[in-house]
Amino acid sequence: MENKVLVTGHKNPDTDSICSSIVMANLAKHYGVDCKPVRLGNLNKETEYVFKHLNMEAPELIEKVDEGQKLILVDHNEKAQSVEGRENAKILAVIDHHRIADFETNEPLYYLAKPYGCTSTLLFEEYKKAGLEIDKVMGTLMLSAIVSDTLLLKSPTCTEKDVKAVEELEEITGLKASEYGLDMLKAGTDLSTYSSQEVINLDAKEYEKNGKKIVISQVNTADIDDVFSRREELEFAMEKEIAEKKLDLFIFVITDIINTSSKIIALGADKELTEKAFGKKLDEFDSMMLEGVVSRKKQIAPPLLEVID
Amino acid sequence: MENKVLVTGHKNPDTDSICSSIVMANLAKHYGVDCKPVRLGNLNKETEYVFKHLNMEAPELIEKVDEGQKLILVDHNEKAQSVEGRENAKILAVIDHHRIADFETNEPLYYLAKPYGCTSTLLFEEYKKAGLEIDKVMGTLMLSAIVSDTLLLKSPTCTEKDVKAVEELEEITGLKASEYGLDMLKAGTDLSTYSSQEVINLDAKEYEKNGKKIVISQVNTADIDDVFSRREELEFAMEKEIAEKKLDLFIFVITDIINTSSKIIALGADKELTEKAFGKKLDEFDSMMLEGVVSRKKQIAPPLLEVID
Repeated sequence: MENKVLVTGHKNPDTDSICSSIVMANLAKHYGVDCKPVRLGNLNKETEYVFKHLNMEAPELIEKVDEGQKLILVDHNEKAQSVEGRENAKILAVIDHHRIADFETNEPLYYLAKPYGCTSTLLFEEYKKAGLEIDKVMGTLMLSAIVSDTLLLKSPTCTEKDVKAVEELEEITGLKASEYGLDMLKAGTDLSTYSSQEVINLDAKEYEKNGKKIVISQVNTADIDDVFSRREELEFAMEKEIAEKKLDLFIFVITDIINTSSKIIALGADKELTEKAFGKKLDEFDSMMLEGVVSRKKQIAPPLLEVID
Repeated sequence: MENKVLVTGHKNPDTDSICSSIVMANLAKHYGVDCKPVRLGNLNKETEYVFKHLNMEAPELIEKVDEGQKLILVDHNEKAQSVEGRENAKILAVIDHHRIADFETNEPLYYLAKPYGCTSTLLFEEYKKAGLEIDKVMGTLMLSAIVSDTLLLKSPTCTEKDVKAVEELEEITGLKASEYGLDMLKAGTDLSTYSSQEVINLDAKEYEKNGKKIVISQVNTADIDDVFSRREELEFAMEKEIAEKKLDLFIFVITDIINTSSKIIALGADKELTEKAFGKKLDEFDSMMLEGVVSRKKQIAPPLLEVID
């Protein structure tokens, strides 16, 4: 067992999960807690861009944790999204900006959640409260996370607090979100080297509600048609996941980061749930366009979870 | 439906639940949220002492909330301890110092929990961060809540933060915890006017784990034998609750606030769980002494929930 407290984001880590785990570990160190950031999966190309820019090593990859391992969770709380073995670990703290579900402890803990666009925005505020200086590295990690989660502040999940944090972080890092951030987002849209199975797992989140098991997977692109041209092989990979993980529904979301809209493909026995949730019919390719929809957390998951209720 | 956001503590409210709902409503007002503190049950005599001292009205009693009602929860999060109707209400925020369990939302929210001795200690810190002045009334409410939850700073749940808060609150209010606080605690030990059914419900909390339904009820006293002399009628009332609420286990905890120890009475089909949890045998009265044990949250609920795991 690792003696240090492990700080971990969610499975299929995105830029916020990776960056916030480092930023949180550094904050905890300030409070005298010896921490080590870890990750639960490969870096996507967007996050790779951040670490190349910083010329820095990404956190160590782990697959599971031992009994009694002390943990701090960032950017998630639901069990299905968390490290394997956490049911026998000890969760000391959670810093998150998602809904709370399937999360239970036997003892009191630190839990900080705010309905902001990004975990790093919460951490930005915590650094300020702690009087802890945000250096260029921590600032770049925070800025990258916020730009990623809010799609350059254009997502409906974006709050005033995220905008304010980015403004200050631009000052600190000397970076322009509209330049550095756009380059980072664009780096993340390159799916050419990924197999279909990899594409549908790059940023997949699993949800459980009333016995229904759902995966919502999302990719960013500058050209929806380009991704959709791989529809047949993507659907094949999705069907395979549905069978293997016994899913009731798999939704693949292709999000246009330039025009802020999404096309979804829905497969599984409960695919009609998407029609109820979004008030539209699936077309002959099991897909529908959702204009203005870019946020899984705010625009896709909640209406879906509501129709399951 | 009440237009204002309702701030509510748990059922069978204790001094922290009542006081923190007022203190939180006042804080939320500072942030521009129009709030109204409410309570889910009668004041116990300890809390009555606080409101008499302040010559102030207690929050309004409510029994349930309507669909869509906006809520802020203080001092609890578990569904079984919460207001009726909350499943169709909208929880905006939670401020708590307990374990997290049976709590789920469809959307992100504010959630602040810290493993402190009292919710009011968290709120004390939030007032400071917000730069909001703590006046004598708010200070007295906070001080009362902390003294109550930590048994005059003697409970193992008490942290340095609670001690520090009480020191500052003594300055602000001009009260001495050792005098005002002890009088308040003593006021709460007068059970003479309560029926047995009332006694076992004064501070009862319900827990659900792995299908087991447990109630742990606690009273404070300066003389355990005095309360225990009512054992037969108390057990009768406990058996009635077990039958009515289909409980697997009912634990009644009589806590000596002077000598910081507790006697428990355990009834129900799963009463042997207490023997596993505390490593002692129940005597012929289904009771056992637990020296040094005063905290349900830290010393009674966790070992019990663990043996259920």
